[in-house]
Amino acid sequence: MKTADLSGYLIYPNPENPTLTSHVVGRDHTGKEVEVDVVTERGLTVYLNKQEIVTLMTLGDHPEYLALGFLLNQNMLRNDDVVTGIDYDEELEVAIVRTQRETNYEDKLKKKVRTSGCAQGTVFGDIMEKFDTITLNAETQLKTSWLYQLSRQINTTPSIYQKAGAIHGCVLCHQAQPLVYMEDVGRHNAIDKIAGYMFKHNISPEDKCFYTTGRLTSEMVIKTVQMRIPILISRSGFTAWGVDLARKAGLTLIGRAKGRKFVALAGFERLNYDADLSQIADEPKKSGRRNAD
Amino acid sequence: MKTADLSGYLIYPNPENPTLTSHVVGRDHTGKEVEVDVVTERGLTVYLNKQEIVTLMTLGDHPEYLALGFLLNQNMLRNDDVVTGIDYDEELEVAIVRTQRETNYEDKLKKKVRTSGCAQGTVFGDIMEKFDTITLNAETQLKTSWLYQLSRQINTTPSIYQKAGAIHGCVLCHQAQPLVYMEDVGRHNAIDKIAGYMFKHNISPEDKCFYTTGRLTSEMVIKTVQMRIPILISRSGFTAWGVDLARKAGLTLIGRAKGRKFVALAGFERLNYDADLSQIADEPKKSGRRNAD
Repeated sequence: MKTADLSGYLIYPNPENPTLTSHVVGRDHTGKEVEVDVVTERGLTVYLNKQEIVTLMTLGDHPEYLALGFLLNQNMLRNDDVVTGIDYDEELEVAIVRTQRETNYEDKLKKKVRTSGCAQGTVFGDIMEKFDTITLNAETQLKTSWLYQLSRQINTTPSIYQKAGAIHGCVLCHQAQPLVYMEDVGRHNAIDKIAGYMFKHNISPEDKCFYTTGRLTSEMVIKTVQMRIPILISRSGFTAWGVDLARKAGLTLIGRAKGRKFVALAGFERLNYDADLSQIADEPKKSGRRNAD
Repeated sequence: MKTADLSGYLIYPNPENPTLTSHVVGRDHTGKEVEVDVVTERGLTVYLNKQEIVTLMTLGDHPEYLALGFLLNQNMLRNDDVVTGIDYDEELEVAIVRTQRETNYEDKLKKKVRTSGCAQGTVFGDIMEKFDTITLNAETQLKTSWLYQLSRQINTTPSIYQKAGAIHGCVLCHQAQPLVYMEDVGRHNAIDKIAGYMFKHNISPEDKCFYTTGRLTSEMVIKTVQMRIPILISRSGFTAWGVDLARKAGLTLIGRAKGRKFVALAGFERLNYDADLSQIADEPKKSGRRNAD
């Protein structure tokens, strides 16, 4: 398949960055020596002002976006907070986010919920804090022709995944255009990097949709709703609670999106079946995208 | 493909259990109404004696094994601990593990590391605590003929994955025989259920191998070494740090194991290339097993 046109992206993966993969020597199934690329995995300890919040295992690119997005998605950083600076020390693997507002999440840090799959390892405090109060934009549409264009473009965008596998991708999209494509060894980090990017560059979520390679668990749904993105699309499957929450929040939830097939389990009203299916190919065997994990 | 012979298993998935999946109605890519099965996802709050440790999001089967295994893999429960009882309340979604030894992990609970991918959301305290002190059994072999038999048997064992997707599987194996096959929405839970089962039924790890559907991250390697299992096989890929740790610990690490292909990146000395590759089929398109996430 030919490579996607990257001109419409705001940001996309850089598989040429030598720090994101390493080249290792092993043996193949015949016993022959083989060289393979494997993805980098390193720690990043996030501080909010004086307080150590968490240590994340990450691919290592965009640490500032990751730190910002993690704190936002944990409701530790507010959308109206003034970030006075982010200090990142590559050697110490530390990112310190400084805000005008004084912060203290001692109590919140005590309460841990470990969530399913790759969505996110831990949420602190009450992840449902804001969930019930959020109304998603009902006007935002998803034309099926856009969905098929998105899949094709994302699958043909050069990525660390294509180079080394074992990594998740998340993409913020507007209609048929992928805008912000982040990858990480932890899918939760890819999402958080996008949240950080949106915060830093003041990108509004209401007219966007989210494309992910990972499963649609309760926690993926909660994060998408918290980010106020009304449409969530995945190549993977669903959990029952994820479906329940999507229906409660009025989120359009689409899974098992491969080739011309997909299944929508919530928010049907945003779907516009405009695509001429006779023109949509089934997914080629070498689509360059399987599931990461 | 015909279904695997299940007689050699100690325990395997029960896709017929009605509490593990639900039947939901949605729309397919043509706008037609479709019914699909989706996996259950519910909370389980784990206590060790008087102390609340964590809330896990889980499929919900085998809560006692999950609670035990989680505590073991966090080094909060010792192999020589006497468990005086496990109280599970399905309605409250709480499992309380009681030990003869008095326990208190207040400090440990304060230190959180969020790890990559699905391996495990959080580890408390110093996950490397025991890592450097462990020596894995050098005598344990992996014949490639066993590896091919394991993949074929596991892929043809009826599972929640085959019914509803969006779930991870982990299997403890001895030579060519799968023994303990656990699934969960969080792969870390599937591993912990196996650890709990091994503890409860006193199964020795030294001559076993581990087969997983998920990626070979640092944390997967650390858990396998902590469990003293000398061989780790995955259908998925590697991270660089996972490879480093496997080489340090002398763990045999095999990834990208599909059909006749695989790549070994550590512990080559345990590998015995006895299989006649001309007899091994490439993985059929419908192998019944893709990656869960």
